[in-house]
Amino acid sequence: MKYLLVAITFALTAVLQQPVSAASNSQPPNIIVIFCDDLGYGDLACFGHPTIATPHLDQMAAEGMKLTQFYSAAPVCTPSRAALLTGRLPMRNGMCSNSRRVLFPNSKGGIPATEITLAEQLQKVGYATACIGKWHLGHLPPFLPTRNGFDYYFGIPYSNDMDRVNDSPKGRQAFQNPKVEYWNVPLMRNEEIIERPADQTTITKRYTEEAVKFIKSNQTEPFFLYLPHSMPHVPLFRSNEFENKSRRGLYGDIIEEIDWSVGRILDTVRQSQSSENTLVFFTSDNGPWLIFNEQGGSAGLLRDGKGSTWEGGMREPTLAWWPGKIKGGTVSRELASTMDIYATASQLAGVQLPDDRTMDSYDLMPVLQGGQGLREALFYYRGYRLMAVRQGAWKMHFMTQNAYGQPQPVTHDTPLLFNLHVDPSEKWNVSQQNPDVIARLGKIVAEHKKTAKHAPSQLEK
Amino acid sequence: MKYLLVAITFALTAVLQQPVSAASNSQPPNIIVIFCDDLGYGDLACFGHPTIATPHLDQMAAEGMKLTQFYSAAPVCTPSRAALLTGRLPMRNGMCSNSRRVLFPNSKGGIPATEITLAEQLQKVGYATACIGKWHLGHLPPFLPTRNGFDYYFGIPYSNDMDRVNDSPKGRQAFQNPKVEYWNVPLMRNEEIIERPADQTTITKRYTEEAVKFIKSNQTEPFFLYLPHSMPHVPLFRSNEFENKSRRGLYGDIIEEIDWSVGRILDTVRQSQSSENTLVFFTSDNGPWLIFNEQGGSAGLLRDGKGSTWEGGMREPTLAWWPGKIKGGTVSRELASTMDIYATASQLAGVQLPDDRTMDSYDLMPVLQGGQGLREALFYYRGYRLMAVRQGAWKMHFMTQNAYGQPQPVTHDTPLLFNLHVDPSEKWNVSQQNPDVIARLGKIVAEHKKTAKHAPSQLEK
Repeated sequence: MKYLLVAITFALTAVLQQPVSAASNSQPPNIIVIFCDDLGYGDLACFGHPTIATPHLDQMAAEGMKLTQFYSAAPVCTPSRAALLTGRLPMRNGMCSNSRRVLFPNSKGGIPATEITLAEQLQKVGYATACIGKWHLGHLPPFLPTRNGFDYYFGIPYSNDMDRVNDSPKGRQAFQNPKVEYWNVPLMRNEEIIERPADQTTITKRYTEEAVKFIKSNQTEPFFLYLPHSMPHVPLFRSNEFENKSRRGLYGDIIEEIDWSVGRILDTVRQSQSSENTLVFFTSDNGPWLIFNEQGGSAGLLRDGKGSTWEGGMREPTLAWWPGKIKGGTVSRELASTMDIYATASQLAGVQLPDDRTMDSYDLMPVLQGGQGLREALFYYRGYRLMAVRQGAWKMHFMTQNAYGQPQPVTHDTPLLFNLHVDPSEKWNVSQQNPDVIARLGKIVAEHKKTAKHAPSQLEK
Repeated sequence: MKYLLVAITFALTAVLQQPVSAASNSQPPNIIVIFCDDLGYGDLACFGHPTIATPHLDQMAAEGMKLTQFYSAAPVCTPSRAALLTGRLPMRNGMCSNSRRVLFPNSKGGIPATEITLAEQLQKVGYATACIGKWHLGHLPPFLPTRNGFDYYFGIPYSNDMDRVNDSPKGRQAFQNPKVEYWNVPLMRNEEIIERPADQTTITKRYTEEAVKFIKSNQTEPFFLYLPHSMPHVPLFRSNEFENKSRRGLYGDIIEEIDWSVGRILDTVRQSQSSENTLVFFTSDNGPWLIFNEQGGSAGLLRDGKGSTWEGGMREPTLAWWPGKIKGGTVSRELASTMDIYATASQLAGVQLPDDRTMDSYDLMPVLQGGQGLREALFYYRGYRLMAVRQGAWKMHFMTQNAYGQPQPVTHDTPLLFNLHVDPSEKWNVSQQNPDVIARLGKIVAEHKKTAKHAPSQLEK
């Protein structure tokens, strides 16, 4: 009996240890995008936070690349996500607005059918695709992930602070000591509501389990996993295991649970046959929501936060990981955007970029391999308003509006100019000293405006 | 002939590759303290700076420990250095003042002979000792490094912005485009002035060469190398090799040259027989000098800078490195101080702490091995004034005074209270909600005051 067991163990071990890399090397890489909600530039240990412990993200950085000048395409949720998934600025597809900044439960609109999401792109060449997490690109059937390129969807259709119930504590009080039942947010699997209100306390854990299952069940074909966490958007909820775990308090608990989740996902990849054939991005949709004080994150040394086109609103703490392809422990300071993930993944999958529309996406592989980026400029939009432009070190603001306490944008007759390489905190306006830079950036904007046709807003429907 | 050469090469290789660890393991470890001047908490890539490239310091962190709650003992130069080298608060030895905050070229005082510097401590048990860099504990003969425990001294005796010559540009203009001849700072070897004005453009490079030579020439006995850089204190100077090297401009060039220097020193240690027997600290004397705008550093997410007892003035970006003893890629969030290096080194060298005086130093080895620290509280002094106290997460301010623009301290009848674990940026005063914490910290301060005998100021002489 004992010998039989040994023999079986041997046989099993042999099967499990079979080299399977041949299969994975001949196929395009898997793509995983882990996308946080309202995470601040300064909230990870590897981006300088003193008390939030993120050992798995630090390890991801040690094995991969830290990108310190990587941006979302908008300072709020819906447009940022639309841009990530389409590789296009939100004004081009109407996923923005100057009044209603994101989609709400009573919205009638969503991502237009004419848009080609990254999931649709990758589906064309046989990728298995899943969206696990917060969608926020339209909750009505035509707009759901399953109608937009994803084989599978598990998550909440809009923000976790929406569908507030009438008898919850008023104003921001509900967030101070949040209870799941204060919000009636649905949890969906594919097109079906499976739980309402969603039990947000276990949501990060369940997203993780779903993601792990998806990775494990897609070992023979390439996959695209889009994992937009609901957290750390308020109301903040975490599993029992993370209660009072972080020195940073509730907000830290949430980040440390996300960190755990990243560890679980990378471990799953490491132990799978796709370990050397999976590109993973970790980033966020916009900056920290500062009005929530200690329940909001930190933009570190950057100015302002979510909602604003100051750096704190749009620059994201970003990591890229691909063992064997991206050198460990490296830092890239090249200009890059969440929109660039679209071209990068398309290129790696061998599928052409759409040629019937203006794209705002540049292949990141040169950057990820330690070289110069292909992106020349970055445009900072707030709704349909072009607020600022960046090229190289220079950022020029035509208009500024703080995230809060400033109801209308201020137009600057002489634009404000900051050298972000020297002055990442946007403290010292140097426009007077640099008329040549103002002129050069002005030309870039004029060129950009020629292609900047505004589509009608989907958010005002 | 060819064979002879091969034979010699072989023999030499054999000699050079002889394992010599037996010798080094039987002796106490070498101690290296790399001490910057006015470096900000947020100025290293591994502490979150987006554009300053510090690959050698990042590597040091990857192979060692990052300490995120590590403090200098004072927010300005002279008292901070005195505390580092004596393991005692400056008010105990008079190396502070409420009026003249540091020593000047016309000062008559310096570190009292009764103080036992860390160099004197280690000399007792046979360490070779060197101070290479900025001293600033008294430039008159009795106060020089060579009279205070150091076998060897190479460096400038006070700050690099002192001894300004009369016909230099006025005010801060001299710093904008600094020339070596604007300052008449002497460079000394032991007790002799060897160059005046010191050629500051090559000073970081020359400190490094001196340090490398010292390490190489002390391979059979333990050594203590104290390397207080003159930089990045204004005026900012760097070698030709670092001119326009950094995206961050002149200030970044300086940090990148210091980073290079750290790489050179660690490489020298790695290649020496003491590679596994050398504990290296990297930290700074106080926070960034913010009035110098882009020529000053960044405190990252911390409040205020040099001169202030807000966090930005005294919390330092700190790394500890000791292959085989300190686990690589770790982060400690324990409370610790530059003063603790004294007890740590003394303990490792097997020399008793002075027992005839009050010490403010705690052995860091438990922290460096990933455990809890021994330090219970931290006292924030500005001159002789106790401004604030910290225990655990809590910091209580009795008085506050911004580094600049606030000529007198403000006394708070109800102290301000911040939870630094949750609120490292000191944004949200929570004293009203936490009377128990106020009371507890009040008791700690009362106990502290019993031992807080103020020595007469050496800085007002």
